[in-house]
Amino acid sequence: MRVFVTNDDGIEAEGIECLARALSKANDVVVVAPDVERSAMSHALTVRTPIKYSSTDNIAGVESYKTNGTPADCVKFGLFHICKQMPDILVSGINAGPNLGTDVMYSGTVSAAFEGRYLGVKSIAVSIAKHRPSEEVTEFAARFIADNLAVFAAMDIPENTILNINFPHTLEVAGIKVTAMGIQEYDDVYVADANEVDLFWLKGKPVEHHKNVEDCDVEWSKKGYITISPVSYDMTDYKFLEKLRANGGELI
Amino acid sequence: MRVFVTNDDGIEAEGIECLARALSKANDVVVVAPDVERSAMSHALTVRTPIKYSSTDNIAGVESYKTNGTPADCVKFGLFHICKQMPDILVSGINAGPNLGTDVMYSGTVSAAFEGRYLGVKSIAVSIAKHRPSEEVTEFAARFIADNLAVFAAMDIPENTILNINFPHTLEVAGIKVTAMGIQEYDDVYVADANEVDLFWLKGKPVEHHKNVEDCDVEWSKKGYITISPVSYDMTDYKFLEKLRANGGELI
Repeated sequence: MRVFVTNDDGIEAEGIECLARALSKANDVVVVAPDVERSAMSHALTVRTPIKYSSTDNIAGVESYKTNGTPADCVKFGLFHICKQMPDILVSGINAGPNLGTDVMYSGTVSAAFEGRYLGVKSIAVSIAKHRPSEEVTEFAARFIADNLAVFAAMDIPENTILNINFPHTLEVAGIKVTAMGIQEYDDVYVADANEVDLFWLKGKPVEHHKNVEDCDVEWSKKGYITISPVSYDMTDYKFLEKLRANGGELI
Repeated sequence: MRVFVTNDDGIEAEGIECLARALSKANDVVVVAPDVERSAMSHALTVRTPIKYSSTDNIAGVESYKTNGTPADCVKFGLFHICKQMPDILVSGINAGPNLGTDVMYSGTVSAAFEGRYLGVKSIAVSIAKHRPSEEVTEFAARFIADNLAVFAAMDIPENTILNINFPHTLEVAGIKVTAMGIQEYDDVYVADANEVDLFWLKGKPVEHHKNVEDCDVEWSKKGYITISPVSYDMTDYKFLEKLRANGGELI
């Protein structure tokens, strides 16, 4: 298969190298990734400045390019400008850190997969639920994706939907769960800079969200499962829409 | 009511000034907005550099602050660090340009509203479906939002959902439609820079998407309606999830 690989940790990250190497054993792989880490970029697009790109030999034996853009830019630019043919599947990752539950809102990794899907390519986002994961777990995740790529590619995934996959940080996974996305809350706080007045740094760690249903990615991940969540960029709240429409579709 | 106002066009944009002035007639308004235009920033958060902020007298008679952050930063920082009390409602806008259908993925305006909702505040995003709208239409939209603010605040909006409102660029609106978000396609292309090799600019205009159902924001907006779409940051594709679960919740 033709596989397009991207990420938000940048072309030099271990996760993308591992993934591209594992996938390239049995597939034609093209990598287009940010030249530096661009985490928490969400679905930002570069529209005020131009995209610059160059080929790179960062990943031995794999056709690779880096750009000065965001993850979504890498996908749009890669598919429009670099690829000669549309790929069969796009894989974004492997992210060093969780993209569980509402992390999806902020995630460059997941947004790159959404951009791919929006442009017509079946797409999956892959993350490991720990910052600075071990090489072994990263290798395990890369091998899992490579081994099951044909399964993902054959799935009847709806037009606006991607698979968001998170690996727990262990070599002894409890199993695989297909599940909903949950809520990931943080104990966010802005900490004053030690030296300069009126500068504040965002600091926060994940905390328990007691409103989570048990059957969601956040909760299964904690229990050591690989989670696979189908998420869609059609964000319409259809249930609430129906309720509003009960009033004849006119609100005011 | 206490109203939190933000945008992605920046503190100097006409849309936010108009909106803040209209809302401040009957409410306590606090404005926290980017110091410059930060469109297409989606839900990006600033995590590598600190947030800097200062008060500003850009909007006469309204308590206002600007930050060097993204729209989502402005909301998080504003709610955590600037507001003494949580607001009753957050209004993001008025954006000069459409945020219809899949525009929502890229939209800083809508992401600011999602961030507000995620942090527990009822939130709405407001846009005018034309870049550089006339002052009259901007005033009309601001007045509409101010006049109906109590209606929005009283609505039983689900926990993860916001209202995404788009005004057509006319003073003679055809009506109001509560509707789903559609697909907004662009004829995107990367245009080589005139002077420098390997620099490419993203250019694109909206085009017809023939897969759109008739009853969606993109289509009603074209027909001159104010569209109100309930959109949720729970992006789980529940229909597809159910289908996958028919296999016992195990995929592979």
